[in-house]
Amino acid sequence: MTSARDQPPTKEPAASPRAIHGVHHELRTAENSAGYLLSVLREKHRANPNLKLLDVGTRSGTISATLAQAIQPDGRVVATDSNSDVLKRAQAVAEEAGVVNIEFQQANIADGLPFEDATFDITHCHQLLTHLPRPVDALREMLRVTKPGGIVAAREGDLETECVWPELPGMVKFHAFTLKFIQMNGGTPKAGRQLLSWALAVGSGVSRDHITPSYGTWCYHEPNEKKAWSQAMVLELRGGRLREVGLDAKFATEEDLEEMATAWEEWAENEDAILGMMHGEILVRKE
Amino acid sequence: MTSARDQPPTKEPAASPRAIHGVHHELRTAENSAGYLLSVLREKHRANPNLKLLDVGTRSGTISATLAQAIQPDGRVVATDSNSDVLKRAQAVAEEAGVVNIEFQQANIADGLPFEDATFDITHCHQLLTHLPRPVDALREMLRVTKPGGIVAAREGDLETECVWPELPGMVKFHAFTLKFIQMNGGTPKAGRQLLSWALAVGSGVSRDHITPSYGTWCYHEPNEKKAWSQAMVLELRGGRLREVGLDAKFATEEDLEEMATAWEEWAENEDAILGMMHGEILVRKE
Repeated sequence: MTSARDQPPTKEPAASPRAIHGVHHELRTAENSAGYLLSVLREKHRANPNLKLLDVGTRSGTISATLAQAIQPDGRVVATDSNSDVLKRAQAVAEEAGVVNIEFQQANIADGLPFEDATFDITHCHQLLTHLPRPVDALREMLRVTKPGGIVAAREGDLETECVWPELPGMVKFHAFTLKFIQMNGGTPKAGRQLLSWALAVGSGVSRDHITPSYGTWCYHEPNEKKAWSQAMVLELRGGRLREVGLDAKFATEEDLEEMATAWEEWAENEDAILGMMHGEILVRKE
Repeated sequence: MTSARDQPPTKEPAASPRAIHGVHHELRTAENSAGYLLSVLREKHRANPNLKLLDVGTRSGTISATLAQAIQPDGRVVATDSNSDVLKRAQAVAEEAGVVNIEFQQANIADGLPFEDATFDITHCHQLLTHLPRPVDALREMLRVTKPGGIVAAREGDLETECVWPELPGMVKFHAFTLKFIQMNGGTPKAGRQLLSWALAVGSGVSRDHITPSYGTWCYHEPNEKKAWSQAMVLELRGGRLREVGLDAKFATEEDLEEMATAWEEWAENEDAILGMMHGEILVRKE
């Protein structure tokens, strides 16, 4: 795989999603994580080359950057995150990949988004609502900053549907551990299946016939994918936030954490290893 | 929706998948249930218009019939089922839809398929292996009747990933009930996640780099889909095999069955109701 660092410095053409993926060991791109949105995104971009897209909760920045690539050169992405360190890393991802039609802004959707009503053509989030105690309020806020006729798009995992094979005991333990992790902060592990009901609960301005629900999946089975995902989990379990919070909240002992980390390493080496998870997806057309 | 019965009798062009779906309240078609196979099917059909496809365990016959439509006029489907009554209904489905490049033959894969080695270009099954006590033997038998360079394609649900919203108590009860139902006959509710490992367990002639795994989903959210699926379940619970076996095996009382049937009826009326399930899929290229 070619690293973007190997390329001569250039602003265009922007690096491909693969280059972004290669540098950052980050598996998420617009293509593999926002596929349900891409056809409407392209249609709206054809109609309006100056499309404005808001990506709420950018995290690693790779989906935001690849969404920006999909609407270059004149479309523009604003990507927010509540955490300034996270935001700096995301900004570096975009810069390294030569994506210039994107800007980053710190914002916590729970406090309201710092944008006027009807600012964006498309407002998107990925794996955000599952972590929020008040997901319906967040969707309402996303609708507020979206133009009439625009689209709110959300994709949220349904962690209960995560399945791994082989079912190593340490992997089963990890699954239960992550469910607790999401719940302790008021999140909803079964977010995927509830997206439609959350959108309807927003109330005024959202009717059922303006919502298109779907399900998408993660499917990791190639050696590189398995290694990347496994390494990310091992880092979290041996030195990251999962470890810190897990020990603090007494969700896991040192031995549990090591058992889970070892299981991830062993899993990734298996020829028959595969990981899947179902995600709920909705497109809401604002009236 | 137009019924195939409203059409003048004709042998060609064959009725569309939608007509098949409309007549039989059967949601499964090649497009929505064998999508992972369609591009390779079309490629092989272009190279060989006389393609031969075996569909093992045809059940309602709608996937077999729509696969036959995809390779008409000169491609040919043989569809098997272990149950002669089931086979007659499937045959009627194909006849009503005007599909002529298909034949039906009774066979139980557990006893071996009544075909010579290397007979078919593509051998397919859908929701079959999950019900069998010896799924690896079935895959081996499918490979046997497939030509070298041909494809074995399997798609199996992973019932543990089934999720419904809203989570009515009768629906949660139904989920547990169906898990028991599959297990009592030696089936595997977590078939989807095990497909890759089953294919590798076949042994000689199957190597990892000849297997392409993926995940697909069911997503029922439109009023018609929900009503059709709900009615099928209600019929089973009030007078079908689920009722018969459930009472015999003491998996459910009369009251349980009625609670589950009522829950399905109530669920289908909900605006925010949605059902999803993840399916494992594999394409195995025979060496």
